[in-house]
Order: sequence, then structure tokens, then C-alpha cells
Amino acid sequence: MEKTYKAEIIGVGTELLLGQIANTNAQWISDKLADIGLSVYYHQVVGDNLARVERCFDEAKGRSDIVFVTGGLGPTEDDLTREAFASLTGELLELNEDVLTTIHHYFSKNNRQVTANNRKQAMVFPDATIIDNHIGTAPGMIVSYEQTMFIFMPGVPREMKQMMTEFVIPYLKDQLSLEEVISSRMLRFIGIGEAQLETKIQSIVSDQVNPTVAPLASDGEVAVRITAKANTADQANQMIEQKQQEVLAIVGSYYYGYDDVSIETAVLNLLIEKKQTLAAAESLTGGLFADALVSLSGASQVFQGSVVSYSEHVKQAVLNIPRELLVTNGTVSKACAKAMAEQVAKTMRADIAISFTGVAGPNALEGQPPGTVYISIYQANSVIITEKYHFYGDRNYVRKRSVKKGLELLYYLLKNNKL
Amino acid sequence: MEKTYKAEIIGVGTELLLGQIANTNAQWISDKLADIGLSVYYHQVVGDNLARVERCFDEAKGRSDIVFVTGGLGPTEDDLTREAFASLTGELLELNEDVLTTIHHYFSKNNRQVTANNRKQAMVFPDATIIDNHIGTAPGMIVSYEQTMFIFMPGVPREMKQMMTEFVIPYLKDQLSLEEVISSRMLRFIGIGEAQLETKIQSIVSDQVNPTVAPLASDGEVAVRITAKANTADQANQMIEQKQQEVLAIVGSYYYGYDDVSIETAVLNLLIEKKQTLAAAESLTGGLFADALVSLSGASQVFQGSVVSYSEHVKQAVLNIPRELLVTNGTVSKACAKAMAEQVAKTMRADIAISFTGVAGPNALEGQPPGTVYISIYQANSVIITEKYHFYGDRNYVRKRSVKKGLELLYYLLKNNKL
Repeated sequence: MEKTYKAEIIGVGTELLLGQIANTNAQWISDKLADIGLSVYYHQVVGDNLARVERCFDEAKGRSDIVFVTGGLGPTEDDLTREAFASLTGELLELNEDVLTTIHHYFSKNNRQVTANNRKQAMVFPDATIIDNHIGTAPGMIVSYEQTMFIFMPGVPREMKQMMTEFVIPYLKDQLSLEEVISSRMLRFIGIGEAQLETKIQSIVSDQVNPTVAPLASDGEVAVRITAKANTADQANQMIEQKQQEVLAIVGSYYYGYDDVSIETAVLNLLIEKKQTLAAAESLTGGLFADALVSLSGASQVFQGSVVSYSEHVKQAVLNIPRELLVTNGTVSKACAKAMAEQVAKTMRADIAISFTGVAGPNALEGQPPGTVYISIYQANSVIITEKYHFYGDRNYVRKRSVKKGLELLYYLLKNNKL
Repeated sequence: MEKTYKAEIIGVGTELLLGQIANTNAQWISDKLADIGLSVYYHQVVGDNLARVERCFDEAKGRSDIVFVTGGLGPTEDDLTREAFASLTGELLELNEDVLTTIHHYFSKNNRQVTANNRKQAMVFPDATIIDNHIGTAPGMIVSYEQTMFIFMPGVPREMKQMMTEFVIPYLKDQLSLEEVISSRMLRFIGIGEAQLETKIQSIVSDQVNPTVAPLASDGEVAVRITAKANTADQANQMIEQKQQEVLAIVGSYYYGYDDVSIETAVLNLLIEKKQTLAAAESLTGGLFADALVSLSGASQVFQGSVVSYSEHVKQAVLNIPRELLVTNGTVSKACAKAMAEQVAKTMRADIAISFTGVAGPNALEGQPPGTVYISIYQANSVIITEKYHFYGDRNYVRKRSVKKGLELLYYLLKNNKL
């Protein structure tokens, strides 16, 4: 049986602790390690302080087999990664002539002068495996210490990624005889809450070791991540496929796609499949619905356009909504939503039309509280559905939730052949 | 002399270790803590595993005064933050009836059912200070244990940010009597590149210790952050004000506002000030321009609406653009851009209109390469300006840059009284 290696990632740099940048290096490395079946158990971030960097290394040494360290290899005084490791291990840094030559070469190529502190970047541990830097000056290093492998790389994402891709990943696969593959798939659901979905698939979620099944929530949607470990990608995918069938047997009616499929992609694909064109009339959403579709490159096949009728005049002049209807019912009304959908379908000669009218906030409108939203869907001379919702959140949250709810309505009507 | 508090941030969630998301919560919190003069010494990330979460809490307790924990407060079985802290401290979780009532209220408001596992979110530590969640269901908690203050918050960024802003930051300022103030202001510029701006203000950037001056680039814009430390907010603001004058003396002609002022806010404010209404006709931008304005709550005062004319039929039927013009010039043309702006101004009875037509990509259109964009601005019976641009990037980058360029054009024309 193959050994399970525990990996850990340490980011060194005060800019991370000041919140000036996010630790995207740790995310990127984690994602790559998942692909080759290495499990990451911890991330740490520490500033440019010798004692604290050493403390993080010490903590990692005791619990992890492989420790990835990014940052702190630069030429300046507050780059302390090498020094902290030397202090922890008692290993002495030595000038490496080959590395120094490479640095000199880099500077002459870029018409810049080598400064005294660049010499610091040529200081390496005697037993280290050197990782060439094809982009910048600081070389990477792989050093083993008491059963733990430390892999030092620069914090500049481009340099780190080049080292990982060209050297570290192949090196690890070879050295650790990694044969295991971890694949995952994100199943996407709409129209069901996270707790409700989890309750329904409880038995599948709690029993699983491989593949694992985990529900995740995001604004107005839920996803279920299935992750499988196997010896080949094919095997892992087969395991995922099977587990997906089990999940969908229970909650398949809320499912719309996986991984990169968004709800707008799902709607667009159904429209293309059914050869139905779509138009929109938007009040509070103000172009956000149109944007969701136009952001997809196939949109022009079915999407006609949208009238953003932000003023009453536009509702009358462009959408031909009778003034009396607006006076009698108000613009935030079922009647107005219906008329908007019907009129934009006719004006744009679209098969289907959707309309949004409501109160984004922060203030009430026509006596209705922020978050009140009407959505209407029209097709072939009849209003299919008109619904009233109430969303809780700030102006732009209400607008986004309205668009998502509109996409959800379109998706289910199209999928169930009601459009 | 004031005590220096050591802060630490722990992110709990396997999705972070799998690289599915970056730990942007830690970045955001770090940034906010820097503003109130709290020093963050470590970040940790750990997966949904009881023993490992407990280990991280134990490590943090020994070295930090204040520990911020995000994630693991959800209703599902792999949400283990509460359990890990209970295991470390021996404190027992108790059902809090007030919290349970709030959760019930949340679900009935959203027409959803409370499930058994939602009850878990009402389990709190007896001595905890409860932090209300105005967005989701999981409350936050502040609990002290052996001199260390633990602050637990949900991992959903919107919920965590609401708690930090409304409760945690004021609470910490009060409890810790934080006296040193770090203030910063972000000056915003458009129409000048980062390198060009940095060269112009070089002397101001390099000499500074307090306040510091740092240029930052983002898509199509540049910002300059001025950060000052002082004993009072007034002092810090005075220092910033003075430094701002020095910067604007050199590059003031590219300046449009600071902090939360976006270029769309600046345009909206000028329109309101000049009592000018605005309409838009959008082809490739597909509602993105309208959305930029409608996302601001004052938009209804001046913004009439937008026609998203994604099909040729809509250009003819809604915008009344003659078929011959489209046949002769194509839709990606100066002539079409001009006609779109003129027609939408007339149809919507707006004082000013702006139009966007072009090729978002990935494919060429009418023989023109992706990234080709025409923008036209019309006012009071005459076309003020029509410009051709080429933006390099993918579909949505081209669309965003087009909107930003349109806003930039409007801003300078309005500011210089050319509109």
C-alpha cells in the first residue's frame, strides 16, 4: 500500500499579513498538488521576522512530510527564509558559483548591475537540489531535514509557477512514486437550500471516504463536490460518475450542470437547443440580466437584447406601456411586470421575454419596501408566469438575486418543456 | 505606553486546502486590522478535521492575543469549528433560544423549512458574546480563553464582512482602547498609465516614511494610496490632506476622486450637478454600462435607461437605425455608433447619450478583429465625439474596458464643460 504524504504550504512575507495581497500562491500550489494526489493539511502565513519564520518551519517539520515555502528569497535584508532554515537546522549557507554566474548573466542580459546584496541569492545549502529560475534571479531549493522535505521557491507567482510546473511536480512524481490521482467534480443545483439538500443526501454525505461528497453554498445556489482518489484518471472519473448518479437519483430535479457550467450557460444552451430567442425588459436589474447572457460567447445566437427602462418615460415610449396602467398599478406591480414582458417580446420579435421590476433600495418606492421584486415571463401571446419575491440584502445583492431567480425560472420552464 | 496586541487569523475549510478558493477572508481582515493598528503575526488554514482544527487553535492560543477564526460554523457535519474549540477548552456548547428564534425567523421569512441540522447553528458557548448575522443563519461568537480572545465568524465573505464592520471592529476599538490610528486614502486617476504616473511623482513616492505614498494599478485605472500614522484620526487626516495636495499639484488633471468614489460615481455626480439626463445604446457591452450606473443608488435622478441591441433587428426596430446604414457600413462602424447614440437620445428624450458597438470576441465580426470598439457620445442635436479603440484581452475584458473608456470620455467631457 502506498504511503499518504502530508503536505503543507508556508507563505513568507509581511505584505500578506498587511492584507495587501491574498495568498494566491497557496491556492495555486494546493490545486496542483490535489491533481497529483498529495494531500495538503495546513497553510501558514508569516511575516519577515527571523524567529517567527523559524517557528513556522519547526511546526511544519513535526507534522508534515513535504513543506512548500514561498517568498523571502529576495536580495533584501528582510528576506529571511534561508536564514530561518539555517537557524532551525544548523546547516550553513555556502556561496554557489554556478548560481552566481547565472545571476551575473541575468543582470548583463537586462543591462543592469549586480549589487552586493544579489550575492545573497547565490547562497545555498550544501546538500540542496537547486531549482533554476528562468524568469528572475532567486533559485529555488529542495532540502531534506529529519524526514521532512522542504521546497523553497520565490514568492513572485510567475517564478514560483514556472518552478513548480517545470521542475517540482515532475520531481515529486518521480521521487515519491506518486501513482494516485485525485479528481473532483462540482455538481451545481438551484432552487434548493444547502441544509435542505444536505438532509436529502445525508446518507451519501456521511458514509463516504472515497469518493467524498461535500455540499457547499453560495448566493442563491448550492453545489456538491465529489472527490475521488484512484490509480488512474479514468478510474477516478468512473467513481465520480457513479456517485453523481446516486446524488442525482435523489436531488436531480434541482441539478443544472457541473464544474464550469453556470446557470446562465444552462439557460443559453436550452434556448439554443430549442431554437427559442429571448429578450428582456429590466427595471431594477438595470442591464445585469442582459450582461449575464452577453458575457457568454454563444449569446448572439438567441439573445435579441434588453430594454433597460429605468425611467417611467422609457417604459411608455420604448416599451409602449400605457400611462394609465402605470398610474393605476404603479411601476412596482404585477401588471407592470406582465406588460413589460409582453411589450418587449413584441418589440424585439422574441419568442420568449422576461421582465424585472422592483425596489433595489436603499429607499422604499411607491410604498413598497426594498427587496420587493416582480419577475414575469412571456411567450407566444401569453404570460407564462409572474411572481413576486422579497430578497433581503443591499441594493446590489437584491439586483443580483433577482437576476439569478429569473435565470432559475427560465431554466426550469425550459427544462420541463413549459417554454 | 500602549500594549501591542498580537493578532492571528485562522481559516477553516477543506476547500481552501484543495485550492478551490483563495483565503481572501484573511486578506480582507488583515487589511481592516492594519487600519486600527492591530498587528497580524500569523495566518493559518486548516481543513474540516476536528483534531487538526484543535491543533491550530492550540498553537494560536499560545502566541496570540486575538484570534480571528473564519469558517466551519455551517449546519453540516463537516462544520467543526465549535466542536474543536469545545474539545480544546472543555467548554460545553448550549442551545441559545434567542439564536434559535432568529434562525426560525430567517427561514420563515425565506419560505424555507428549518432542518434538524440548522439547530446546530444555535449552539453557542455559555460566556460567549454573540455577534448577530444579518445576512445568513450562523451567529458569530467572541469567547475568551486563558488570556486569548477568540472571534468566530462564518466563512461566507458577505456574512463575515458584515460582522466585522458592524460589530467586531467597534468592539475591539472599545475593549482594547486602541489609540494609534492608521488612516489611508486611495486617490483615483483615469487616463494615465501606472508607470507614467509613478515617474511623475517619483520624488514624492521614494522619500516617504509617514505618510507613505504608493501607486497601484488596476484595469484601465491607477490609484495612489497615502497612509499616515498618528495619535488621532484628525492628525492622520491632516497629514494625508497635505500629501494629497502635493500629489495633485503634479497629476491633478487625471484625478477624479478618492476612496469609494468610482469613475461611475464621478460621472453620476457631474450629471446630477449639471442636471443632464443620460441614455445608452449598447451592443457588445450588453447592459454592462447601464449596470455600472444602476448599481449606484442615485442613478434614477439622471439615468433614463439603455437599449441593449444585441441583434440587428433590435437596432432597426427599437433604435430606428436604417437598414441601409447597417448594410453599407456594418454594425461595427463609426456610422453605426453615431446613429445608435443619436437615436437612443431621441427615443429616450435624454440630454446626453452614449453608444458602444464592437467585437467582444472570441471570433472576428464583419472582418474586424476582436477588441475593435467604437464609442460615440451625442448631445443636443450633435455628435460630440466618436472614437475607435482596440482593447487586447478576452471577451469580458474587452467589454469591461469599453465601459470604463466610455465612463472616462463622459467624465472628461462633463468636467471640462464640453457637455
